[in-house]
Amino acid sequence: MRLRLTPQDNSFYDLFASTGRILVEAATVLAEFLGSDEARRHELARRMEDLEHEGDAATHAVLRRVNSSFVTPFDREDIYQLASRLDDCLDEMQAAVDLVIIYRLQELPAALTQVVQVLVRQAELTAAAMPRLRSLAGLSDYWVEVNRLENQADGIYRELLGTLFGGGYDAIEIMKNKEVVEALERAADAFEHVAHTVEAIALKET
Amino acid sequence: MRLRLTPQDNSFYDLFASTGRILVEAATVLAEFLGSDEARRHELARRMEDLEHEGDAATHAVLRRVNSSFVTPFDREDIYQLASRLDDCLDEMQAAVDLVIIYRLQELPAALTQVVQVLVRQAELTAAAMPRLRSLAGLSDYWVEVNRLENQADGIYRELLGTLFGGGYDAIEIMKNKEVVEALERAADAFEHVAHTVEAIALKET
Amino acid sequence: MRLRLTPQDNSFYDLFASTGRILVEAATVLAEFLGSDEARRHELARRMEDLEHEGDAATHAVLRRVNSSFVTPFDREDIYQLASRLDDCLDEMQAAVDLVIIYRLQELPAALTQVVQVLVRQAELTAAAMPRLRSLAGLSDYWVEVNRLENQADGIYRELLGTLFGGGYDAIEIMKNKEVVEALERAADAFEHVAHTVEAIALKET
Repeated sequence: MRLRLTPQDNSFYDLFASTGRILVEAATVLAEFLGSDEARRHELARRMEDLEHEGDAATHAVLRRVNSSFVTPFDREDIYQLASRLDDCLDEMQAAVDLVIIYRLQELPAALTQVVQVLVRQAELTAAAMPRLRSLAGLSDYWVEVNRLENQADGIYRELLGTLFGGGYDAIEIMKNKEVVEALERAADAFEHVAHTVEAIALKET
Repeated sequence: MRLRLTPQDNSFYDLFASTGRILVEAATVLAEFLGSDEARRHELARRMEDLEHEGDAATHAVLRRVNSSFVTPFDREDIYQLASRLDDCLDEMQAAVDLVIIYRLQELPAALTQVVQVLVRQAELTAAAMPRLRSLAGLSDYWVEVNRLENQADGIYRELLGTLFGGGYDAIEIMKNKEVVEALERAADAFEHVAHTVEAIALKET
Repeated sequence: MRLRLTPQDNSFYDLFASTGRILVEAATVLAEFLGSDEARRHELARRMEDLEHEGDAATHAVLRRVNSSFVTPFDREDIYQLASRLDDCLDEMQAAVDLVIIYRLQELPAALTQVVQVLVRQAELTAAAMPRLRSLAGLSDYWVEVNRLENQADGIYRELLGTLFGGGYDAIEIMKNKEVVEALERAADAFEHVAHTVEAIALKET
């Protein structure tokens, strides 16, 4: 067990905690985006872009600190992997927003909202887990629930495929909507990968 | 070299061996599924779901044991990764079955059967390799052959794309069949990733 | 810090350097391929296949050496991962070539050339970085720039989607072109993953 309470360590937790907050806001922006008209969607897409830059800044602050710190709260590679996997969550949520804009999609399948609600919940659980990295205690509920939510997102995703291919959509509309749904599904996977990384860290360190 | 012969270690090998047997049965179910009528397909889809639950149970048994064991046969993270990659193989085979059901596909391209035969062979080799994790001896034939089979699956996959896009299928039929073929291709990749994990473990431990 | 200057270590660097040169040639072949007529494309596809075999040979030479060397310049798993991620870059570039042939695509969207120019640049930076693995010094410019290029490729990729779906392409043409573009995008990602691996090695070893 390495030094956990030295000031230079704390900042790692602070940086992960702020990334967690960014993920919650990004998921919330995504939820509003899907329910908005085109003008509002463009505002929210810009907001998502800002969040993505804030996330990148937090990630690079972590990596710079990993380089400069002699003592790190846990293995450098684990800090590195956790930072980059948190970044993946943000990237996929932004990808979904960008695809809706690129494809000028107006009406979206209703079930998209359900997937995004799963992402909001995963983001909230992830944000709540980040401060607990300090003690690495009581995290198993977090990763179990995030995995359960990913399975739920997967189920909604498969129903959505059934809807898209069930008639009433032409081939090009199917392709466009499918891309958006797949980005959301990858976002749910990315949150699960963050949880796997946290689980692997906890297995090693505790 | 860590203690290899203590009782608490053996159970890891037993759990991996049982996952190997589940993979062989899943690949066999998948092969029968493709050749069956709709009614039989629904029965086999339920059987595949049961196998997926059995696989999850074996995976979680491994992870619980990793948490509770002080001594593990090799690095905890490697046990963790091997368990989750074996799980990926099962997930992708189940995904292929689910997609055929979701899309209500009747006729499937004949070459699908060839890909599934590759998966059956990869599963048999994987199941035969799991008990050899104890000694980590004589495993190189396994990972070389699984890689060769993945290349073979990749070749069949590319021919299949040519067939699907070669005319005679409309855009939506192409999309549906392509999804199924891609799930099978990802299953072949997943078996290769298991082999890479076993190879990496052998590199370290021997 | 492990022995860096013993003869048996050098060969690792030599092998990675030769893989770097193969990647530069593969990216150059890919660039010419896209601008060529069908006859010339088949010649270049065969050349790409040869390069892929050369790459595999270099990869396996690394893995054999990892198995046989007692002393390695850095962790065996890192050498293993770097070798396999370099291999991924080549696989994706070859996949793009194969897809153009399989789909008998004549005219390709002009923006494809821009993505391939990014790949050429990423390959050149990667090839230039490989010899610097010996000292692990001055590599941060490399991974920062390769990441920037991947973001650039991602931007071009999204514009390309807009073009493909913007009208003037039927559904099947969209699907075919999209596959090729996606393979190129995965190649840009693969170069970024190589850079991440190098960065992770540098974080550990320095």
